[in-house]
Amino acid sequence: MTIQIQRLDSSDPDFRRKLSAVLAFEASEDEAIDQAAARILADVKARGDAAVLEHTNRFDRLQAQSVAALEIGQDELQRALGSLSPERRDALQAAAKRVRSYHERQKKECGSDGFTYAEDDGTVLGQKVTPLDRVGIYVPGGKAAYPSSVLMNAIPAKVAGVAEVIMVVPTPGGVKNELVLAAAAIAGVDRVFTIGGAQAVGALAYGTDTIPQVDKIVGPGNAYVAAAKRRVFGVVGIDMIAGPSEILVLCDGSTDPDWVAMDLFSQAEHDELAQSILVCPDDAYLAKVQASIERQLEDMPRKDVIRTSLTNRGAMVKVRDMDEACEIANLIAAEHLEISAENPQQWADKIRHAGAMFLGRYSSESLGDYCAGPNHVLPTSRTARFSSPLGVYDFQKRSSILNVSAAGAQTLGRIAAELAYGEGLQAHARSAEYRLK
Amino acid sequence: MTIQIQRLDSSDPDFRRKLSAVLAFEASEDEAIDQAAARILADVKARGDAAVLEHTNRFDRLQAQSVAALEIGQDELQRALGSLSPERRDALQAAAKRVRSYHERQKKECGSDGFTYAEDDGTVLGQKVTPLDRVGIYVPGGKAAYPSSVLMNAIPAKVAGVAEVIMVVPTPGGVKNELVLAAAAIAGVDRVFTIGGAQAVGALAYGTDTIPQVDKIVGPGNAYVAAAKRRVFGVVGIDMIAGPSEILVLCDGSTDPDWVAMDLFSQAEHDELAQSILVCPDDAYLAKVQASIERQLEDMPRKDVIRTSLTNRGAMVKVRDMDEACEIANLIAAEHLEISAENPQQWADKIRHAGAMFLGRYSSESLGDYCAGPNHVLPTSRTARFSSPLGVYDFQKRSSILNVSAAGAQTLGRIAAELAYGEGLQAHARSAEYRLK
Repeated sequence: MTIQIQRLDSSDPDFRRKLSAVLAFEASEDEAIDQAAARILADVKARGDAAVLEHTNRFDRLQAQSVAALEIGQDELQRALGSLSPERRDALQAAAKRVRSYHERQKKECGSDGFTYAEDDGTVLGQKVTPLDRVGIYVPGGKAAYPSSVLMNAIPAKVAGVAEVIMVVPTPGGVKNELVLAAAAIAGVDRVFTIGGAQAVGALAYGTDTIPQVDKIVGPGNAYVAAAKRRVFGVVGIDMIAGPSEILVLCDGSTDPDWVAMDLFSQAEHDELAQSILVCPDDAYLAKVQASIERQLEDMPRKDVIRTSLTNRGAMVKVRDMDEACEIANLIAAEHLEISAENPQQWADKIRHAGAMFLGRYSSESLGDYCAGPNHVLPTSRTARFSSPLGVYDFQKRSSILNVSAAGAQTLGRIAAELAYGEGLQAHARSAEYRLK
Repeated sequence: MTIQIQRLDSSDPDFRRKLSAVLAFEASEDEAIDQAAARILADVKARGDAAVLEHTNRFDRLQAQSVAALEIGQDELQRALGSLSPERRDALQAAAKRVRSYHERQKKECGSDGFTYAEDDGTVLGQKVTPLDRVGIYVPGGKAAYPSSVLMNAIPAKVAGVAEVIMVVPTPGGVKNELVLAAAAIAGVDRVFTIGGAQAVGALAYGTDTIPQVDKIVGPGNAYVAAAKRRVFGVVGIDMIAGPSEILVLCDGSTDPDWVAMDLFSQAEHDELAQSILVCPDDAYLAKVQASIERQLEDMPRKDVIRTSLTNRGAMVKVRDMDEACEIANLIAAEHLEISAENPQQWADKIRHAGAMFLGRYSSESLGDYCAGPNHVLPTSRTARFSSPLGVYDFQKRSSILNVSAAGAQTLGRIAAELAYGEGLQAHARSAEYRLK
C-alpha cells in the first residue's frame, strides 16, 4: 500500500522554510490542564496525605484506606522479578548491567571527584561534588509503562550515590505492571508508591506524612504531570519536559533499505506525533526505502500509528552530499541521530548537536533504547542545542570552595573593595577591607 | 541604635518549625506580570524587530529608528573601558583574569573532553562534549547593574567555547553604564544590544532580522524578565530563576565580631528580601555580633536596606556545637556559606548542600563576589540541594556515542528484541533482529 511521506530537496530554493515547517512542533499548552494541575498541587501542599489519597482513589478508581496502603514493599518487587520468564528476566538484568557499567564510566569521566588547587599565596580554590539526597522517579501507568525507562532513570541516580530513590507509578483500576516492578527491583529503587498524576508530583515536591520530600523529580508523564512538574520547578529540580520522540537517519545509500525503513518505523511506532526523517544524497536509495516502507508496513502490529506518524511528521530529504547531510543534522539537533554509512566517524566529527549518535549500520536506535548502555532519556525538539542526555551529572551538584589565605586576602581585598565601591555596595567593600592588614 | 534580629536556639523543642518560618520565602507569582510578559513574547515572535523597537522605545523612553541603532559596537565598548580610572580598570581586569583562570581549571576538570571506550567485541561507547553555539546574557539596567555579573556570566561561556555571546542591557532614558560596557569589553562579549525586559528575552529566544536567535539565556532580571524566561524555557535553555541572595555564617566564636557583622551586612545591603543568618555555639559571641551590628549600622550608606533585611529575614541561631551547626547548614542549603572557624576543613567535610563554601576567617563572601575566581551566580532558596553554581558545564552539552560492532549487535540485538516485545514495540524488536546474522 502507498504511504505519502513528504519529500524535500536541499537544492529547492525554499528548502529551509519547508524543513522548518516539517520540524515545527508546538507543545499544546492547555490552560485547563495547567489550572487543574495547579489546584491539585495546592491541595496536596495544604492537606498532604489526605489529598493524595482522595485524588488517587478518584482518578485511579481505587478504594485505598491510606497512603501507606499504596506503598509496594521490596518483597512484592522481588516477587514480580521472580514471576518473569527466565528469558525476560535475563534480558532485563543484562540491560541493567550494561546501563550501570556505562554510567559508572560516565561518573568517573564527568568530574565527579571535584577538584581543589592551591595558589602561591596559599589560597585554595575548588569545587566539591555531592549526590542529591533523595530523588523521585515518575513512571507512567497504562500503555506507556516502560520497564526500560525505570532502568534508565533509576540507575544513574544510584550510580551518582543518591541515598534514596522513590518511584511513583499509577495503577489505574489497581492493575500493576509486573515488568515495571521487576525493573524497579533490579535498579535498586528504594520505595515505590502506586500514585500518579499531579498528586504524585505534589507529594514528592512538598512531602507528606507518608511520602518524603525529594530534591528532584525525573521521568516522563502525561500533560498533567508535565504541567505539575513545570510548576514545582524551583521547589525541587526537574528534568526536561520531553516532547515527541525523533529519529534522524543520515545514510550514504549503502545500508540495506529494509534496515533503515525499520529504524524509521521504530520511532514512528511510539506515537502519532513521533518524527522520523531520512537524509540521503542518493535519490534512488530514497525510492528503495520508500518501497521498503510500503512493503513492510502492513506487517507491523502498530501500523496505524506508524502510518499516521510518517504521513504527518515524517520526511525524506535529498541532499547534495554527506557534508550537507551533517549541516542539516546540526540544524535539526535530533534526539536520535543514526549515521548509517561507511566510516561513520568522519561524519560524526562534524556533528555539533544531537542527543545520541548511533554510528554505523549495526547501531540501530533500538539497541540504545534498551541495552547498549548510554541513557535513552534524551533531549527532544531541538533542545540538544543546549541540553544533554540524562546522566549521572543530573543527580549530582557542585559547591564552590574558597579558602583564602591571609596573604591572599591582601591582594583580593583591594580588588574587591575597588569594584564594590564602583557598584555602590559599601558593606561588600568594608568586609573585604577588614581583612587587609 | 537597636535592631531586632530574630534569635533561635536549637534546644527549643519548636526549633525546626521556627527555622522553617525564617527560611520560608515564596516568590510572588503575579498573574498580571506573567500575562504581560506572555503578550510581549507573542508580539516579538509575530512581528520581530518592529515589536522589539516599539516596546523598547516605550518602556525605556527612547526614540530609536531601528533595532540596528540599538546595537553598541566594539569601539564603544573599548571607549568605555578606556574611560575608567586606571585603578578601576585594573581591578576589573584582575578580577576577569582570576575568573577566567578558575573556569579554565573547571573546564579541564569537569569532563569537557568527553570519553569513548571500546568493549571486547569492538563496540565503542562514549560521550562527546560540545559548546553551545550562541548564548544570550541578560544584564539589568538601572540600580542593579553590576559589571561583576557581566564577567561572571560571559567568561564561563567564552571559556566553554561558545562562539557568540550576545549581551542585552536596557538603557532607560538612554543612560548607559560605562562600567557594564567596560566589563563586556573585558569579558569578550561579541555583540551588545541596549534592549531589556520581556522584549529582549523574546528577541533572543526567537530571533529577529537583527538579533540572532540564541541557544540559552542566562543572567538576572526583574519579574517580567523572570516570567519571560520561564515561558521560553524549552525553546532555549535558561539558568535558574534566582531568588533573594542569602548568606549563612557558621562561626566557632573566635572571629572578630566586626568582621562577621560586616559579612552579614554585605548580604543584607543587596535588598530588603536578602537573608543573613549567623549560627554559633557561643551565646556570648552572638551578643557581641549583635552589639557590633548596632554600632556599625549607622555608618552604612545602605543602612535602611540593611535594617529592613536583618529585621525581617535575618536570624541568629544558638546551637549545641559546630557539628549541629553543620547539620543546620545542610538543612538550609545556603547560597553562600561562610565557615568562619579554626580548621574550617573539618566542618566543610560535613557539608553536603551549599552554593559556595567560604572557608576560614579571611574568606569573606565579598572576595568571592568579585574576584576570587569561582562564579558568583549561585543557587538560592535551598536549591543548592539539587543545583550548582553557574559554570563552564552550563555552556556545554553532551551527546552519547554508540558505535555497535557487527559482533556486538548479536549480543545486544537479542536483549533488545526480548525487551521490546515485552513492551509491545515490535518495530523496535525487528530493527534489532535485522542486525542478527
